Amino acid sequence: MTNPLDLLGINTLRFLSVDMVQKAGSGHPGLPLGAATMAYALWTGHLKHHPANPQWPDRDRFVLSAGHGSALLYSLLYMTGYDLSLDDLKQFRQWGSKAPGHPERGHTPGVEITTGPLGQGLANAVGMAIAEAHLSARYNQGDYAPIDHRTWAIVSDGDLMEGVAAEAASLAGHLKLGKLVCLYDDNRVTLSAGTDITFSEDRVARFQAYGWQTLVVVDGNDLDAVNAALVAARAETTRPSLILVRTHIGFGSPEQDSFKAHGSPLGIEDVSRTKQALGWPLDPPFLVPAAALEHFRRALARGEQAEADWNSRMRGYAEAFPALCAELQGRLRGDLPAGWDTEIPDFPADEGGIATRVAGGQVMNAIASGLPALFGGSADLDPSTHTALKGQGTFNPPLRVGENPQGGDAGGWSFAGRNLHFGVREHAMGAIINGLAAHGGYLAFGSTFFIFSDYMRPAIRLAALMGLHVVYVFTHDSIAVGEDGPTHQPVEQLASLRAMPNLTLIRPADANETAVAWKVAIETRDRPVLLVLTRQDLPTLDRNQYSSAEGLRRGAYVVRDAPAATGKRNGLDLILLASGSELTLVLAATERLQAEGVAVRCVSMPSWDLFDAQPQSYRDEVLPPAVHARLSVELGSALGWHQYVGDKGEVLSVDRFGASAPAGALMREFGFTTDNVVARARRLLDAEIS
Amino acid sequence: MTNPLDLLGINTLRFLSVDMVQKAGSGHPGLPLGAATMAYALWTGHLKHHPANPQWPDRDRFVLSAGHGSALLYSLLYMTGYDLSLDDLKQFRQWGSKAPGHPERGHTPGVEITTGPLGQGLANAVGMAIAEAHLSARYNQGDYAPIDHRTWAIVSDGDLMEGVAAEAASLAGHLKLGKLVCLYDDNRVTLSAGTDITFSEDRVARFQAYGWQTLVVVDGNDLDAVNAALVAARAETTRPSLILVRTHIGFGSPEQDSFKAHGSPLGIEDVSRTKQALGWPLDPPFLVPAAALEHFRRALARGEQAEADWNSRMRGYAEAFPALCAELQGRLRGDLPAGWDTEIPDFPADEGGIATRVAGGQVMNAIASGLPALFGGSADLDPSTHTALKGQGTFNPPLRVGENPQGGDAGGWSFAGRNLHFGVREHAMGAIINGLAAHGGYLAFGSTFFIFSDYMRPAIRLAALMGLHVVYVFTHDSIAVGEDGPTHQPVEQLASLRAMPNLTLIRPADANETAVAWKVAIETRDRPVLLVLTRQDLPTLDRNQYSSAEGLRRGAYVVRDAPAATGKRNGLDLILLASGSELTLVLAATERLQAEGVAVRCVSMPSWDLFDAQPQSYRDEVLPPAVHARLSVELGSALGWHQYVGDKGEVLSVDRFGASAPAGALMREFGFTTDNVVARARRLLDAEIS
Repeated sequence: MTNPLDLLGINTLRFLSVDMVQKAGSGHPGLPLGAATMAYALWTGHLKHHPANPQWPDRDRFVLSAGHGSALLYSLLYMTGYDLSLDDLKQFRQWGSKAPGHPERGHTPGVEITTGPLGQGLANAVGMAIAEAHLSARYNQGDYAPIDHRTWAIVSDGDLMEGVAAEAASLAGHLKLGKLVCLYDDNRVTLSAGTDITFSEDRVARFQAYGWQTLVVVDGNDLDAVNAALVAARAETTRPSLILVRTHIGFGSPEQDSFKAHGSPLGIEDVSRTKQALGWPLDPPFLVPAAALEHFRRALARGEQAEADWNSRMRGYAEAFPALCAELQGRLRGDLPAGWDTEIPDFPADEGGIATRVAGGQVMNAIASGLPALFGGSADLDPSTHTALKGQGTFNPPLRVGENPQGGDAGGWSFAGRNLHFGVREHAMGAIINGLAAHGGYLAFGSTFFIFSDYMRPAIRLAALMGLHVVYVFTHDSIAVGEDGPTHQPVEQLASLRAMPNLTLIRPADANETAVAWKVAIETRDRPVLLVLTRQDLPTLDRNQYSSAEGLRRGAYVVRDAPAATGKRNGLDLILLASGSELTLVLAATERLQAEGVAVRCVSMPSWDLFDAQPQSYRDEVLPPAVHARLSVELGSALGWHQYVGDKGEVLSVDRFGASAPAGALMREFGFTTDNVVARARRLLDAEIS
Repeated sequence: MTNPLDLLGINTLRFLSVDMVQKAGSGHPGLPLGAATMAYALWTGHLKHHPANPQWPDRDRFVLSAGHGSALLYSLLYMTGYDLSLDDLKQFRQWGSKAPGHPERGHTPGVEITTGPLGQGLANAVGMAIAEAHLSARYNQGDYAPIDHRTWAIVSDGDLMEGVAAEAASLAGHLKLGKLVCLYDDNRVTLSAGTDITFSEDRVARFQAYGWQTLVVVDGNDLDAVNAALVAARAETTRPSLILVRTHIGFGSPEQDSFKAHGSPLGIEDVSRTKQALGWPLDPPFLVPAAALEHFRRALARGEQAEADWNSRMRGYAEAFPALCAELQGRLRGDLPAGWDTEIPDFPADEGGIATRVAGGQVMNAIASGLPALFGGSADLDPSTHTALKGQGTFNPPLRVGENPQGGDAGGWSFAGRNLHFGVREHAMGAIINGLAAHGGYLAFGSTFFIFSDYMRPAIRLAALMGLHVVYVFTHDSIAVGEDGPTHQPVEQLASLRAMPNLTLIRPADANETAVAWKVAIETRDRPVLLVLTRQDLPTLDRNQYSSAEGLRRGAYVVRDAPAATGKRNGLDLILLASGSELTLVLAATERLQAEGVAVRCVSMPSWDLFDAQPQSYRDEVLPPAVHARLSVELGSALGWHQYVGDKGEVLSVDRFGASAPAGALMREFGFTTDNVVARARRLLDAEIS
């Protein structure tokens, strides 16, 4: 039997949630009613946190992967004393409220991460647990453990069905993340039906196959059983834990165990019936018994004590290991270490040049030693994406005697390693680096072929929505991939990602633009930055002859202008625009046309969003409104280029899928040749004159 | 010991593949060397096919999910007698070749589906097995089994790591797809490393947890053991089978068992060493021993006999069940049954109106009875997306005694049901409907919220690349979703999908446009069609006052024109453009402005790609080049609208993430009000005049 005070607390969570949903006229009462006991157990008995300081670095992280149960989370935050009032709860789902429909990081104190799209939260939690494992391996010394916390998540049937969660769970088991605990709200009902119609797998056996500890609580209202499972999960050190808690969606309501309890207010009558069924006063709504509040609010004193203990330990750590401590503190604050960029190479002019993926790899390695927060890897493609941080070790559980890796850079496996091998799991990679960034202390990156950005798009979107500072390194960026063919050749990916708000996309044109792009990627703090790099070699421009690559910072810049006083009109006849690998092409066309006396300006345009953020004066300087003959050249969809070339301009683009052939053949067949650029430019000039 | 003829055949596959990769200078030799034995066993002893007629409907389907091993597939196709020559193999990965870098459906006879992006093929195979299960349940009668074939796939480590495959495998186990067999090329090496660095889960236990039969072959070169496992898989009737075949990547080459053997030509020297190691003549390349060819080509006679037997059975079936037989034959040909569209409602004018998702549901149900090929479902959202086909049953294995479903429309579970419940598995849904379409006999649809199209984007892209006729029903199409907030509110999805080649996207503006959109979706045969529908109610326009909704077929049409001779210039002062829910808004603004004497034209623009496909004359008729004052209004990213509004036009769009609030509040805050549209229009007119 649950004791009365505990039951009071549990029911307070339930009915605050029910009343929030009812007042808002929308939301999800089913999960809070069913999962209140496990949430109560975790938040009052196990979660290490300090509601008065949600930024305390060594707090446990809590992820409500089933983000539609946000009312439960807000109830927990209010009850334990975060900066969220009862009035805020009454504004659930209203314009400007601190209690939006799904939990939003940065919006509500105590919300660690934005959730709602299913599967993401579990994978984010894996990222947070990786964050803790690496920081503790790198910084904890002897008796000093500045980093020692757990990651907890509440996950749902829907989470467990999503592929991104499956990928992340497999990796978490492989990585032996012993401080990750997922409470699975096993209510066997989803939005549309019972899980018997779609989801009859043996979930316990699946997670055991991944290498997880599994624990089962047969009655989710049995507080003692939930607590016992949480204790067992905390005792485990080398396996993540899944606690399968059998619950009942909409517990106590007339629609209990039905999908109808999932996502709509109960309605006034059923709210009353549910309160009656669970012995709760019908009025007032938003009732918070003083005893319950007092019990929850003990979290404040516990949290204060925990943080004070930590501060005291940190003082000792700072004395014993001043350099490490300073480095850790700087990371946790998000500082950029002084001189982080001094090793970045200045690439000499080179006609043959190198691929921007190769240049990018050299730049990353130049940054890595001065920026310990740089951490990440690729989805099984680092020999191709050139994203390995050399000499920085492999993030993997230490090998035990008798374990003999077959391949790869097997040396130096430990949690202190900074190269994280994601396997062929792009989506989990995206969600895991979100978890790293949300945890704090990281500049996390993930890498794959540009085409496979499609696999991780939901995670990229969440990074943009949260304004997380992560870096994507996407290589093999156009049909110039060549022989691998259309399944591997990006066409629409540039346009589709340019459409996404709050994301900086940069497609540099040579090695030195790549170096500047990486500087922008590191210095940008409030959003993800996406680098789009070539497979093929590109000439490294002679910047004595062309403008400095620093122009990339403004998104677009004049890389070579028309010689003074050559133009037929306005001093300028024509503007050629290109990004990435096509800059070489338009420069060659520029030279041909200039030799014919045409006043051509050549603009490198690696980043639309950086350019759009410039003042109108700069934009007009680069693209003078009076010059109508403009041709853009890019190995991607035309979509969006019209706003830069204007009504009288033209777009040379790729608006069909690619093909399997050597890159040179594809360039000819798709019209990406100097001859064709020159011919298209001449047609534009002729049209202007006629 | 493998007998000499078998070994000759296996090595022929190996070295044709090696020589193809070597001659092309790119490709993947590792998989063919390791997996040749299982491929040989399957294709010479178990696969039911007729190389002279790759379209024979009752053939087994074969999917090379590990599409990078395409050289192996082309070798099999050539050796068994498909319309692919040795010269074609020598043109591997060249422009215009029938042997592109990854297998491409429609490009090479015998290639069932385009693969390469990992995980997709396994999920496609699940779709094909579903296709077979449903057709056989619906059409097979007593002794007559017009449909009785298996689906086979070769899958790799990478496939098993991908979330989309995990989703599909879980669903396949739930659905008890006994005629699906996956051969798992367990070579423990991926592109970048050994799997020990990322993938240590117990794969056998995982698939058992999904409800699969698992079989293990400890030596992938042991032909007898492979055959025994294939026999066991064929004997299983209620579980899909995973045959884990332990192989060695790059078998016989100096780089055997190393990731270096994965994806690059071996090089001339190592090609020789490999041939020596396996006892193969060094010259000539592309050696095809006559005995091997003769042995493989027996597939032609076997296939001819199998097809003849089937034709004979079909004649009996046609006599016994003429109506069913005619229906089946029509489906397999892809015919549209006469009168399929006669029940589609004509929606009466209605100020209050209905949501286009609701109208869409009514239209689908009106089509369903006359179009048995319509088959599909949603990723756990059919109560919200309104995509349930009423009275058409649930596609699920028949319930056995004692099984008691908890919820949903549990009645009528059988493989004859046409409502497929995908669970919360959007990505697998996309890949599964690709498999249904590729199988033939289906007009498959998949449905979820528009925001979650991001989860299934790689599958949508493959549908577009293959030109598969599938229909996506994506509802809740803008920030007007309201309270669920930015995680659930599409912003950039319209632009990002418009960027994709070979995809028709339609966002209808009212119930009658929705009906026409569905007609277009059914009648389009060569590409996927994506319907974007609202959550919120929209007025049903009075088509006596406005142009017919049939105008939707041309992508954009004048829904209300300026009264004759009212305009200040050119007879037309201003054009307002909108799609979907915003048409109502611009119509209201049109009325206000027309009342003020402004000559406004209102254009409904539900589909850019349909409009772009119209002749220039029609496009100029709708958007006369002389009219520069144009304002587009759409609840999505601005990207791309400039090409329609022009340099002097304006775009009212949403270029930030949404927010959690009631839809009405969001419309006000984001400027989607009649007042704001009118004000923006007036500013445009003022700018024109000044």
